[in-house]
Amino acid sequence: MKGPELDAGRVFHALGDPTRRAIVERLSERPHSVSGLATPLDITLTAVGQHLQVLEESGLVRTEKAGRVRTCSLDSTGFSVLEQWLRDRRPAWERKLDRLSDLLDEPDEG
Amino acid sequence: MKGPELDAGRVFHALGDPTRRAIVERLSERPHSVSGLATPLDITLTAVGQHLQVLEESGLVRTEKAGRVRTCSLDSTGFSVLEQWLRDRRPAWERKLDRLSDLLDEPDEG
Repeated sequence: MKGPELDAGRVFHALGDPTRRAIVERLSERPHSVSGLATPLDITLTAVGQHLQVLEESGLVRTEKAGRVRTCSLDSTGFSVLEQWLRDRRPAWERKLDRLSDLLDEPDEG
Repeated sequence: MKGPELDAGRVFHALGDPTRRAIVERLSERPHSVSGLATPLDITLTAVGQHLQVLEESGLVRTEKAGRVRTCSLDSTGFSVLEQWLRDRRPAWERKLDRLSDLLDEPDEG
């Protein structure tokens, strides 16, 4: 989990991968060990480890070592970032565009 | 914009790309023409067109042709899909895990 530098882009990138989404889906049922994640996904522990690192860096998953077992569960940080990202853009995507052409780029300030 | 087959995976993939996120950011200010999008991003019209196609297929952007100008604006479909995806997983990512080890995979039903 990263702090200040965590941005929505990192979270979207993490969730753009189907295997990482499958990991998140399984962890939304309950926490799992790394090997518990690897088995049904039919991928190696190494591959799971790499995906978990991306998920941890994007604040979606946290892992904890208890004895010899590393336990993975969802982390709220990345989900909150997504939620905020959507909330900030809600006025824009809910906007009713009755007169679309009026809003078009005339002289472009950008 | 796609209907029934639109899933969150497609939307995450679309937003995993920094240029496509930049397009969405600009469209959350107001609608733009294709060339109005291309200029500040310093990419070709062809590249913008390809990104727009991905964004349209993921229900995030819609384009309309008025005369000779193609106008791009945000489409609520993809955003709603993301919102629903987050909402469905909220109980999981908000769960307080006081006794994480109790929830771990014992016999794995998966």
